[in-house]
Amino acid sequence: MSGFSASDHAWMSRALQLAEQGRWSCDPNPRVGCVLVRDGVCIGEAGHRRAGEDHAEIRAIAAAGGDTAGATAYVTLEPCSHYGRTPPCADALIEAGIARVVAGATDPNPRVAGRGLERLREAAVAVASGLMAAQSEALNPGFFRRMRGGLPWVRAKLAASLDGRTAMASGESRWITEPPARRDVHRWRAASSAIVTGVDTVIADDPALTVRDVDGEFRPPRRVVIDTDLRTPPDAGLLADQQGVVLIHGGTMPARETDLVHAGAELWQVATDEDGHVAPAAALEALAAAEINEVWLEAGPRLTGAWVQAGVVDELIIYLAPHLMGHEGQPLLALAGLASMDDRLALRRTDSRWVGEDLRLTFCLHDDEDV
Amino acid sequence: MSGFSASDHAWMSRALQLAEQGRWSCDPNPRVGCVLVRDGVCIGEAGHRRAGEDHAEIRAIAAAGGDTAGATAYVTLEPCSHYGRTPPCADALIEAGIARVVAGATDPNPRVAGRGLERLREAAVAVASGLMAAQSEALNPGFFRRMRGGLPWVRAKLAASLDGRTAMASGESRWITEPPARRDVHRWRAASSAIVTGVDTVIADDPALTVRDVDGEFRPPRRVVIDTDLRTPPDAGLLADQQGVVLIHGGTMPARETDLVHAGAELWQVATDEDGHVAPAAALEALAAAEINEVWLEAGPRLTGAWVQAGVVDELIIYLAPHLMGHEGQPLLALAGLASMDDRLALRRTDSRWVGEDLRLTFCLHDDEDV
Repeated sequence: MSGFSASDHAWMSRALQLAEQGRWSCDPNPRVGCVLVRDGVCIGEAGHRRAGEDHAEIRAIAAAGGDTAGATAYVTLEPCSHYGRTPPCADALIEAGIARVVAGATDPNPRVAGRGLERLREAAVAVASGLMAAQSEALNPGFFRRMRGGLPWVRAKLAASLDGRTAMASGESRWITEPPARRDVHRWRAASSAIVTGVDTVIADDPALTVRDVDGEFRPPRRVVIDTDLRTPPDAGLLADQQGVVLIHGGTMPARETDLVHAGAELWQVATDEDGHVAPAAALEALAAAEINEVWLEAGPRLTGAWVQAGVVDELIIYLAPHLMGHEGQPLLALAGLASMDDRLALRRTDSRWVGEDLRLTFCLHDDEDV
Repeated sequence: MSGFSASDHAWMSRALQLAEQGRWSCDPNPRVGCVLVRDGVCIGEAGHRRAGEDHAEIRAIAAAGGDTAGATAYVTLEPCSHYGRTPPCADALIEAGIARVVAGATDPNPRVAGRGLERLREAAVAVASGLMAAQSEALNPGFFRRMRGGLPWVRAKLAASLDGRTAMASGESRWITEPPARRDVHRWRAASSAIVTGVDTVIADDPALTVRDVDGEFRPPRRVVIDTDLRTPPDAGLLADQQGVVLIHGGTMPARETDLVHAGAELWQVATDEDGHVAPAAALEALAAAEINEVWLEAGPRLTGAWVQAGVVDELIIYLAPHLMGHEGQPLLALAGLASMDDRLALRRTDSRWVGEDLRLTFCLHDDEDV
C-alpha cells in the first residue's frame, strides 16, 4: 500500500465519491468511480450509473472529450478485462493512451482478480493497486461477498421500542417509529438488491416491499418472501401489484404452485433445514446466483432471529423509538436456546445516530477479519 | 431576564462551575457557587462543599481576604436569609460591603423565595436575579423539586441487552454491562441522596448499594429498600455491614420489625396502594421529609415498572449492552395494562453516549414544563 502520494489519495477519494452515483442504481454491478488526471488537473471523471451502460472508466474517458493521452486513471476497482454487458475497460484505457492506472481494490472474483491489471501492464501502462481498497470494498459489501463466497451481504432491519418490543401483545405495531426513520428505511431499501420478508409478515401486514419517498434514481429491488409451505395468499398485494415477487419455498406443492404462478409469483425451491424450514444459507445461495448483492431483511422476530442464529446476517440496523411498550409486547428477536450469559450473541457497533426522534443503531455480527 | 451583560453571563458561568464542587458532597444542601468581582477582576470565589460548613458566599468572602467593599457577588442561588445550620448569607454579604448581588435562581421554597434578595435590597444593595436560573436549577433538580413539591427527583437506572432483556430466563444477569458503564453508575450513585431498591433485588442479589470506585469526596447516600412485607433477610449484607439501611414497609409486623431493628435496620411505615404494595408517592414523601433530594432507583423490572407507571420517575438512565439475550430473558420493565399503541409511554431524550462498549441513553418522563 506504500508509494502513494497525498494527491493520489485525494484523487482516489474523489473517485470513491463518484462511485456513490451508482449507490441505488448500478446493481448488480459494483459501485465504481473513475477520475482521469493529467498535470495535476482532472480532465474527466464519472461514476458507473446503471448495469448495461458504460462503466465509470468509459464515462470518464468520454467526459475528457478524447484528449486523454498520458493521463493517470484513478479507479476504485480494478478495470475489467472481460466482455460482460460491455467491452473490457482495460482495453479502453489502453486505447485512450492512459499512462498510469491507480486501482483501489482488485477484483474480488478470485477467477479474474488481477487480470485487468495484468492486461494493462502488458500494454506498458504503469499500474498500482490497493489505494483505499477498504473504502472501495465498503461501498460494495454485497458484490465483494458474492464474488468471493457466493452469498449476498445481509442487513436485518428491526424497529422496536426502547424496551425491545416490536409490537403490542395484540400484534398492533403501526407505527413504532416516526416518519423520518421510516423514510430512512426506504433509502436502505433503495440501496438493496432484494427486500426479503417472511410469509407471516405477508399474511399479517400485506406489505408492499417497495421503495417510496426517496430522492434519486434507483433500481427497484427484487421482492422476496421466505415461504417454506407456500402460504402466501394469491391475493396478496405483492402479487396484485404485478411488480414481481419471488417466493422461496421448501417443497413440492403442485396446487399452490399453480395458483401462485398464475397470480404472478416466481417460485424457487431450495433445501430445508432440520426443522423443515427453508434453510437460510440455501435461500441466500439462490439469491446470490440471481446476482443479488445486498439483501435487506425486513421480517418478524422468528425469521430474523433464525437467520441471525444461522450466522447469515452481517449487519443489524435497529431503530429504537423513545417509547415503552411493556413486557407483554412482542420481542425484538426470537432466539432459541440461550440459557446462560455466555450464550449471548455479541455485536460490534458501527454507527449510532438519531433519525428524527428515533435512535438508529447499526451493528456488525462478525469481526472485521471475517468479512 | 434582560439587562445582564456578557460579563455578567461569564461570571455566572464561572459560579455555576464552582457549584459543581459540591456535586457529590453538599447534600442535602443545594449545589451553589459564588464569584466576587470588582473592577472586572475576580477577587474571591468558592463553591459550597458540605452541609454544615460555610455556604459558597461565605467561602468566597473569606477567599477575598476581607477586602470586598464595593464588589459584585454572582451567586447561582438566592442568598439565604434565615438561620439554618449556618447564619444567613444575605447578612454576610451586607457586612462585607457588597454593592451588587446577581443571583441565578430564586429560592425554590415558596415560603422563603425572594426574602434573601429583599433583605439585600433593604440594605441598599443593588439586586438582580434570574441570570442562568435554568442552569442553576438543572444542577439541583432534587432540591428544587423537594422545596417546591415535597418530593425528591427520581432517576431510575436500567441495564439491558439491545433486545431489552435484563437477565437470562434463569435470572443470571452478571454482568450485562462492561466495567466502564458500571463505574459510571457509581458516579450517579455518588450524586444521589439515596439509593433505592426493592426487596426482591435484596433477596436475589444481596447488593451492597454503596458508592465504589469514584474519584472525589462524596456523602454516602442513604440506602433504602422498598419492602412492603419486611421480607429483607436479617442477615442481608445491607444489614451486616452496619452502614445503615432504611426499610420502607407497609404494615405492622412486630416479630419481623424486632428482628430487623435488632439487625440494625431503620423502619419506616408508609401507606400502601390498592394492590397492598408500598405506595410510591408515600415512600417518596417520606424520603423528601428526610431531606432526600435525589433518588437513584436501581431495582428490578416490577418495582421500576410500577414506579414508572405511578408517574413518580423523572428520568430513565438506560445502559444498553451490545448483546442479544433472546426472547426468553427477563423484560426491561413490567408495565401492566398496555393494550394498544396509544397506551405506550412516551419518553423525551436528554442524552445519548457510549460509555465504554455500552450505550447510555437518558430520558425524561415528563415535559420540560412539568418540572
